[in-house]
Amino acid sequence: MQEKGSISIHTENIFPIIKKFLYSDHEIFLRELVSNAVDATQKLRSLAQLGEFKGELGELKVKVSVDKDARTITIADRGLGMTAEEIKKYINQIAFSGASEFVEKYKEQDAATKDQIIGKFGMGFYSAFMVADNVEIFSRSYQEGTKGAHWTCDGSTEFTLDTTDKADRGTDIVLHVAADSDEFLEPARLRTILNKYCKFLPIEIEFEGEVINQTAPIWTKQPAELTDEDYVKFYQELYPFSEPPLFWIHLNVDYPFNLTGILYFPKVKDELQFQRNKIQLYSRQVFITDEVKDVVPEFLMLLHGVIDSPDIPLNVSRSFLQADAAVKKINTYITKKVGDKLAELYRKDRAGYEEKWSDIGLFVKYGMLSDDKFYEKAKDFVLVQNVAGKFFTLPEYQEFVQANQKSKDEQTVILYTTDAEAQHAFVQAAQDRGYDVLNLNGPLDSHFIGQLEQKLEKTTFKRVDAETASKLIDKDEAAESVLSDDDKTRLQELFTKAISNEQMHVLVEALSPQDAPVIITLPEFMRRMKDMQRTGGGGGMQMFGSLPDSYTVSINANHPVAQRVLNAEGEAGAQLARQAFDLGLLAQGMLKGEALTAFVKRSADLLAAE
Amino acid sequence: MQEKGSISIHTENIFPIIKKFLYSDHEIFLRELVSNAVDATQKLRSLAQLGEFKGELGELKVKVSVDKDARTITIADRGLGMTAEEIKKYINQIAFSGASEFVEKYKEQDAATKDQIIGKFGMGFYSAFMVADNVEIFSRSYQEGTKGAHWTCDGSTEFTLDTTDKADRGTDIVLHVAADSDEFLEPARLRTILNKYCKFLPIEIEFEGEVINQTAPIWTKQPAELTDEDYVKFYQELYPFSEPPLFWIHLNVDYPFNLTGILYFPKVKDELQFQRNKIQLYSRQVFITDEVKDVVPEFLMLLHGVIDSPDIPLNVSRSFLQADAAVKKINTYITKKVGDKLAELYRKDRAGYEEKWSDIGLFVKYGMLSDDKFYEKAKDFVLVQNVAGKFFTLPEYQEFVQANQKSKDEQTVILYTTDAEAQHAFVQAAQDRGYDVLNLNGPLDSHFIGQLEQKLEKTTFKRVDAETASKLIDKDEAAESVLSDDDKTRLQELFTKAISNEQMHVLVEALSPQDAPVIITLPEFMRRMKDMQRTGGGGGMQMFGSLPDSYTVSINANHPVAQRVLNAEGEAGAQLARQAFDLGLLAQGMLKGEALTAFVKRSADLLAAE
Repeated sequence: MQEKGSISIHTENIFPIIKKFLYSDHEIFLRELVSNAVDATQKLRSLAQLGEFKGELGELKVKVSVDKDARTITIADRGLGMTAEEIKKYINQIAFSGASEFVEKYKEQDAATKDQIIGKFGMGFYSAFMVADNVEIFSRSYQEGTKGAHWTCDGSTEFTLDTTDKADRGTDIVLHVAADSDEFLEPARLRTILNKYCKFLPIEIEFEGEVINQTAPIWTKQPAELTDEDYVKFYQELYPFSEPPLFWIHLNVDYPFNLTGILYFPKVKDELQFQRNKIQLYSRQVFITDEVKDVVPEFLMLLHGVIDSPDIPLNVSRSFLQADAAVKKINTYITKKVGDKLAELYRKDRAGYEEKWSDIGLFVKYGMLSDDKFYEKAKDFVLVQNVAGKFFTLPEYQEFVQANQKSKDEQTVILYTTDAEAQHAFVQAAQDRGYDVLNLNGPLDSHFIGQLEQKLEKTTFKRVDAETASKLIDKDEAAESVLSDDDKTRLQELFTKAISNEQMHVLVEALSPQDAPVIITLPEFMRRMKDMQRTGGGGGMQMFGSLPDSYTVSINANHPVAQRVLNAEGEAGAQLARQAFDLGLLAQGMLKGEALTAFVKRSADLLAAE
Repeated sequence: MQEKGSISIHTENIFPIIKKFLYSDHEIFLRELVSNAVDATQKLRSLAQLGEFKGELGELKVKVSVDKDARTITIADRGLGMTAEEIKKYINQIAFSGASEFVEKYKEQDAATKDQIIGKFGMGFYSAFMVADNVEIFSRSYQEGTKGAHWTCDGSTEFTLDTTDKADRGTDIVLHVAADSDEFLEPARLRTILNKYCKFLPIEIEFEGEVINQTAPIWTKQPAELTDEDYVKFYQELYPFSEPPLFWIHLNVDYPFNLTGILYFPKVKDELQFQRNKIQLYSRQVFITDEVKDVVPEFLMLLHGVIDSPDIPLNVSRSFLQADAAVKKINTYITKKVGDKLAELYRKDRAGYEEKWSDIGLFVKYGMLSDDKFYEKAKDFVLVQNVAGKFFTLPEYQEFVQANQKSKDEQTVILYTTDAEAQHAFVQAAQDRGYDVLNLNGPLDSHFIGQLEQKLEKTTFKRVDAETASKLIDKDEAAESVLSDDDKTRLQELFTKAISNEQMHVLVEALSPQDAPVIITLPEFMRRMKDMQRTGGGGGMQMFGSLPDSYTVSINANHPVAQRVLNAEGEAGAQLARQAFDLGLLAQGMLKGEALTAFVKRSADLLAAE
């Protein structure tokens, strides 16, 4: 005995789910009803174009009005309208996609027209019940000889359907606002909602005697029709009080997905100013969301602008969106367009590109770090800047330094500073040797350095204070010392004793007499380890506790102070060594707290006594 | 002619919506099916307790198994089971809440039992079709004399229903995994999912011969039954490799909402280590999410632990959740419990509380700033710490400093440092005057200071380097100068000329000869403005551009250096003044870059020449 049957759904149970769960924000009811009205109007216009409707189109505005005393909101259009039969079919049977039937009928038409006449009937309408306890429809079809229909429903599954004397073609939806939704009876609230969702709908929307939308926003136009002013003006409409954008990309693709939009590179000076969620997502000019995560690659989330695509699934969860094939393609497309635009800017106007670099550098580096394809594209137009302010591409910079900054084992050593002011003494010492020093002080630069060391051949990076200037690039040059080996040993002992700190490894070196008497450095490897530890590095590093500091203290054998320390007797020598060491600490920004206060006091006393 | 009717839903349209949109993650199918199995088992146990079921309960495990070759996943229980009629009723009619009928029948029972037997039939089952293209049910009811039933469905709306020879009571759900869901045929993947969602289900779940869950997690027990070790052990199960928690709060409330759980205060040393989303939300021991935003007050998001409440609506959007009355009450309840716990810790064990302060201080301050009710509670147990390391409550500290730190206009002036090391010279100068200095170097302390100044009467805060020590607290004491008025004027002119910087306002003051020759300060008001500007302050502040620096340079008339400057001739005096000024800059951490390098070089030369 086998039985076959159909799974059925009990309306009384599914209805509250649709009402409550389908939309996250109650305010969405207005978007749904207005865009239904716009769809009905556009469909009529399409029919007229196809010759199926021969009457007078007349004024096609959608009118939204509110009556606080009567507690009603009305959305009225002059579109297709519905007969009583159509109401039964489209409204009473939820989730029956009215549009699919419509499209079926006109499927011989070209794709663009078909696209345009796809709308969604049904589900959206029921969002009215999120804010209304009673909804009425007054409708009259565009078809000749049909009567007006009047439908009412109190949010239960029971409805009544009636004839009515509606003079004009189209549909009026009247919402009797529920007690808990008073907020939607405020005109200011409704205006805010209309501005948010309906600002760019393709049919005029009238509210309180004013048209609130632009029916043809610039992203729907061809780039050739637009001037720079148009783009800047639109940007300032989207983001009032913002500085003008640096440049923009007009997106326009039909195949294999449909997407239009404009992405702007904003002017940003530092990380703090970055604002995400500045890209607005539209579907056929209806605002959907400003959370475009997963549609736009992570590193481009800092861009501003508008994306309009009917191919991005709406109302779906994030994990679903991530897996969506169309979304993946859109993602790749946007990345490519951004790369192309940057390459073009670089090629066409190098000077302008350099000027913009402080605003776009972080985007580019973030992109290179997070997307290998983008790295390949950007490696030719990413810029580095030296402390003198000059910009180079990577190939240019390698060329620039290779004569002078090659070590004995043929490594190009790129010198950088993370803070040209704090590391000034070291920058100057490197420059005095004829080396060039890059400014790599951006928030991503430590990762960027790591990436470049992996990608570029025979190239290493070294911070200027990783070694004394003479050792930064190991060229195997012998240095001459004025001191005897005995004196050097004695000097090392004297300093080691005077400093008396296990983390300070004293080394006597034959530097130039112009160099400082004492130079304190932290080897590159140690510093990177400590940086990683400080920035978290996955937390695992925390387990090692604080890595011990381990500095190299280079005593300049050729500086007159060395001789004075050797010649001085007892405590005087130690005091001299400590003062020279303090100067070394000062230059490295390491003389702090009590030690600094004591140094200042001692120096002030010296000044008074001189 | 009026017509009445019922709104109907076309199954073939709603079905894909249920399948795709209701759940964000496909993996959820396993949670839904296992918790259905657990519900059916618990219901049977309830019936047995009520005397409605008189048979042998036997072993009640839910068994999950996977057969990679056959491409099936089976979830088998020994619960209520279903007859063919019941399958038709509960499974074929989606969204028919089986539980509501069940509850209706037993509504005379006490609330706890009723609660326990509320489950959700129906919707959850269909999540199987997210991963399977064919689903079979083999079921036999617990009722005597009923036959086994066999239902199959391929995800369309057509099903077949058959009898079957099932020996044992209960339900086996067999999923024939779809080609695009291969991942769920991996035992490791299933184990991960079970661990995530089912780890604390109240009926034993067996997978690969092992029970994977704890049926009675500690939050379901009474605090009196539990030891500290139990709490710490549970914490370490939830967060392996974590340091033990500081303390915890066992939540347990029946009315006006049902909520159990344990919130732990983690040991955190700095902001970077803060991890949000560490609270897991359960509903009747089924894991729901670790995004508890809106359920837990923002400032407690840093807590860890478990909250279990059937009263938190699931599968709803965030904006819906925020507005939910039960959620609001839960929020208030949790805040209150946390406040009570902190007050208790403070009262019962002051020393232990002080030890924990570095971990909990930020929570408490965040709470005080974001929730006025919490401020009122916490103002008696929030601690401040002075640079000597001693803790005080606010009333204690006001008492402590009021004798010595009252200005002539009866304001208590609280002195603080944001960096005892960098501001060492100023801290020491204040201490030398007998003042106390607080450490207020936390990320929220500038806001906290602002709040305290508003709330506490006649109390102002001043950073130690806002004035020279003698002026920090205006006591209207006259200071004696060894210099004549003429000399003072000349000194001011000499220094102004030597410094030659418009942002530096030179002032000759009669300080102690022990004070530094030059002291540079930034008035409190100026510094706060600049801080606000730096931290963004809403962006509006950016419009003013950089606020000009405006420092006060106090020349100590009573320091011997002043006399030497006055006595020196020409450039020598200017040089002396500049060196003294550099020492002032050094003490304020303002001697940097090229100026610092030059200072070090000059000092090294002096050292060599002495």
